[in-house]
Amino acid sequence: MERVTRVVLLGAGNVATHLGRAFKRSGCSVLQVYSRTISSAENLAGKLDCAFTDRMDSLKKDADLYVIAVPDDAISDLAARFPLKDKMLVHTSGTAGMHKLEVGSTRYGVLYPLQTFSKTVDVDFSQVPLFLEVACTKDRSFLDDAAGRISKKVLWTSSHQRRQLHLAAVFACNFVNHMYAVAEDVLEENDLQFDLLRPLIQETAQKVMTAGPHEMQTGPARRNDLGVLETHARMLAGKPEYRKMYNFISESIRTKYNC
Amino acid sequence: MERVTRVVLLGAGNVATHLGRAFKRSGCSVLQVYSRTISSAENLAGKLDCAFTDRMDSLKKDADLYVIAVPDDAISDLAARFPLKDKMLVHTSGTAGMHKLEVGSTRYGVLYPLQTFSKTVDVDFSQVPLFLEVACTKDRSFLDDAAGRISKKVLWTSSHQRRQLHLAAVFACNFVNHMYAVAEDVLEENDLQFDLLRPLIQETAQKVMTAGPHEMQTGPARRNDLGVLETHARMLAGKPEYRKMYNFISESIRTKYNC
Repeated sequence: MERVTRVVLLGAGNVATHLGRAFKRSGCSVLQVYSRTISSAENLAGKLDCAFTDRMDSLKKDADLYVIAVPDDAISDLAARFPLKDKMLVHTSGTAGMHKLEVGSTRYGVLYPLQTFSKTVDVDFSQVPLFLEVACTKDRSFLDDAAGRISKKVLWTSSHQRRQLHLAAVFACNFVNHMYAVAEDVLEENDLQFDLLRPLIQETAQKVMTAGPHEMQTGPARRNDLGVLETHARMLAGKPEYRKMYNFISESIRTKYNC
Repeated sequence: MERVTRVVLLGAGNVATHLGRAFKRSGCSVLQVYSRTISSAENLAGKLDCAFTDRMDSLKKDADLYVIAVPDDAISDLAARFPLKDKMLVHTSGTAGMHKLEVGSTRYGVLYPLQTFSKTVDVDFSQVPLFLEVACTKDRSFLDDAAGRISKKVLWTSSHQRRQLHLAAVFACNFVNHMYAVAEDVLEENDLQFDLLRPLIQETAQKVMTAGPHEMQTGPARRNDLGVLETHARMLAGKPEYRKMYNFISESIRTKYNC
């Protein structure tokens, strides 16, 4: 069976960085980083100890797997310029259709890591769920094997399911982090440290590790404590956007639990 | 110095339950649980191995500390009926004013635990920040000592700061949990398990344990990826409430980071 041993990364952001590290740790060689911005390519190549380029026609031809990890709106253009028509090409997007890669190669698919990556925080990639799709069934075992080298949680999904996963992840991660940030704003305006909330944040996440979130909902909206809801709305009078968000989410909780 | 050794709980919900356990573990005696609903009082008293009552005139008179842990809108009524005018009386609310207790006793204050409590999940109370207030400075050391027996994190705040902390906690805990619940709804409708999101949820919380949330914001709104934002809004067409929430929170992120 054909196995992945050499990888080229197209993109030099957070996803490319963490994928590159994971492939290196698994024993694969990362041959090269491509980025439109040569300094970004050089920077990541420095971390991964590999070559780099900002030119598609300088792409190394001897890799087994080419991974596009760029913002969604840049995928089509990159695929159209990809010169190696018989090489396995995947993107890492939660939302972009797999067939965007059809212009790039006869062999293509998706490897979507469901995790939040930032430059400064290391991640245990073996625990990151990877969602796979592939255009031709003959490439299925190759991609399954490649994904299995970097993660213990490999799943095959349809494009439809992958999009739904990504949408759910926006609520459970990006919007959650924004709630943390709003809380930070509220505290900072009153000379209180964000640190005071950290045990609460950890416990809130911990509670849904074994139970479902609908069982764990607490707070004034869930208790239908209208006095507190009114007090909080009044306290946010100087921040109309946050007040609107407060009322809207509280209302959504009351609706969900028939309060 | 007068020290707390005997506690009576007025209320039998989640906060009363966890406070009662914490006091017991610290070596204090919980003498009695009062609740309007006798079965609730009996239930918690069974867990704490103590007496119970639904009658204010049967309240044990020999405790050092009487803790009101009921919904905010029930505090005033309970305080008005509290018969022991020289006993230390505190409530546990994040939002209710301290002076609501003035009708109940000459000695009163607040002991607000900043944590989310549920019946089924045990909590390490020693790590729960407790925010204290007291009406008379002569009671300060007594309440400080009482709180210090159950938690390592005891802080004195003003009513104003306590309210702001509670408001921040609603965003960082109750609203966060609602985001988890919305994500669960999205997945369930597409036959996907909530379990798939658990590593992401844990990582999202973990990232703000050392950094501030504004540094950790990721996702389509933060990247200003309008294509994904539009796709997601379209996917939520059948759920107008969730679509509105999606658009609203995305817009709030874009505003905050000038995307």
